[in-house]
Amino acid sequence: MPTFLQKLDDACAASQSLVCVGLDPEPSRMPILDVLEFNREIIEATADLVCAYKPNLSFYESQGMTGLRALEGTLQIIRDRAPHAVTIADAKRGDGGPSAFAYARAMFQVWGFDSVTVNPWGGGDTVKPFLEDASRGAFVWCRGSYASAADLQDLEVESPYGKEPLYKHLARTSLGWNGKGNLGLVVGATAPEQMAAVRAIAPEVPFLVPGVGAQGGDLEASVRCGVDANGRRAIINSSRGIIFASPGADFADAARNATASLREAINRTLEGEGKGWR
Amino acid sequence: MPTFLQKLDDACAASQSLVCVGLDPEPSRMPILDVLEFNREIIEATADLVCAYKPNLSFYESQGMTGLRALEGTLQIIRDRAPHAVTIADAKRGDGGPSAFAYARAMFQVWGFDSVTVNPWGGGDTVKPFLEDASRGAFVWCRGSYASAADLQDLEVESPYGKEPLYKHLARTSLGWNGKGNLGLVVGATAPEQMAAVRAIAPEVPFLVPGVGAQGGDLEASVRCGVDANGRRAIINSSRGIIFASPGADFADAARNATASLREAINRTLEGEGKGWR
Repeated sequence: MPTFLQKLDDACAASQSLVCVGLDPEPSRMPILDVLEFNREIIEATADLVCAYKPNLSFYESQGMTGLRALEGTLQIIRDRAPHAVTIADAKRGDGGPSAFAYARAMFQVWGFDSVTVNPWGGGDTVKPFLEDASRGAFVWCRGSYASAADLQDLEVESPYGKEPLYKHLARTSLGWNGKGNLGLVVGATAPEQMAAVRAIAPEVPFLVPGVGAQGGDLEASVRCGVDANGRRAIINSSRGIIFASPGADFADAARNATASLREAINRTLEGEGKGWR
Repeated sequence: MPTFLQKLDDACAASQSLVCVGLDPEPSRMPILDVLEFNREIIEATADLVCAYKPNLSFYESQGMTGLRALEGTLQIIRDRAPHAVTIADAKRGDGGPSAFAYARAMFQVWGFDSVTVNPWGGGDTVKPFLEDASRGAFVWCRGSYASAADLQDLEVESPYGKEPLYKHLARTSLGWNGKGNLGLVVGATAPEQMAAVRAIAPEVPFLVPGVGAQGGDLEASVRCGVDANGRRAIINSSRGIIFASPGADFADAARNATASLREAINRTLEGEGKGWR
């Protein structure tokens, strides 16, 4: 069984892509009603262009058992049609004691995701259960992409490393949880300065970067600040910008075009830095 | 439709109880295999002694669709057998943008919970969608009961109120989100000093207090530090201490006895403070 990090690196190399598609089926914006059919068309149209798919669990939970069955089917379609791609449960789970272990079991054993986003507010005990199996990864939510991420994450704290913003303290602390090499960090594209600061602290861990596209994050700055020294390990997610690229019957073609454009723009930036795929 | 706060106050008055039972069905510890049947017996044995039931969603999610159907059935049993009781989804959800609204819809519209625990790491945008409907409540996870809660929550931060631990800053900040009076705070019983500090900042909001029983929190100190000026609005949760009070076939009787003991111990403390139910 490859490690999570190996699977992620292989997925990027195989697709020559750092693009992750966020599968966030908001009913009010979907051009067709059926979530599973919608996701199937998106996945089939984008499989060769991406390294990862990231369903955000909120949209499935908000559609009840039907939504959860569609999530189950979606994961099967990814395994069938994009077997190279990494799956990321955007679940932002985080709880203490036996609950942390139960959530890890839910994400990895029950749903079968390769990785999960984790909320670190409860500290190390709430994160470590997601890092016990080197074949599965956990992206710790370090610095969010929405405006109110600053409410707590940017506060200046007294830390053993001096006074610094909380997200930097968290990045340092989380490296201590990374004994198996399967830790990642979520760092939003809307905050490239913070992203550069986190990359300086954690030069090698993979970043999951939400916030390009609909949220208006700066793509070029995100790629430059987010990648490691080799121009890899920044997984750039777009959700609405891809899956809702067209409100019409051509949504899958439009999704493919939007994905291809994003992949090319990222790869142009990498080439400009001398870190292209060839 | 009563407000959430009215429903909670009424539930406590009707049962003369501040006890909440945590419905956390860990398969390895359950005396019978069937989650729904287990919960049914616990609920029927405790209905007249408690103000609230709190299923922790991790245990249901970790049992797949079967677990989630058992959660659905459990909520129906609570509505039938303990109609006065408030339901709390211990879900620790927290995410930004459309996801925050989707999670609120999942908890309140799909599952039909009266209230939910919310993770504030992402700031105001991640919490406010849970506070839009005054008939539903949100308990913001302010200071946890597990040891690693201190990792982030106790850090000293620079705030507009001066230098103080982050959980206190969060308590102050969260009062600004409470325009509809349906905010609560989660404050662990293992940290009575922190609880007293939060109560001083937020004299009237309901507290959800985990950590008595299996986690070893100090019950008497928690009651004294947690209640408001009238001796109310501290909902004291016990999960394992009640539902796993006996590993045998008498688990429901044992759960009733453990619940009654907890209720009496709390009420003795209230009476000692001149704040009993009569």
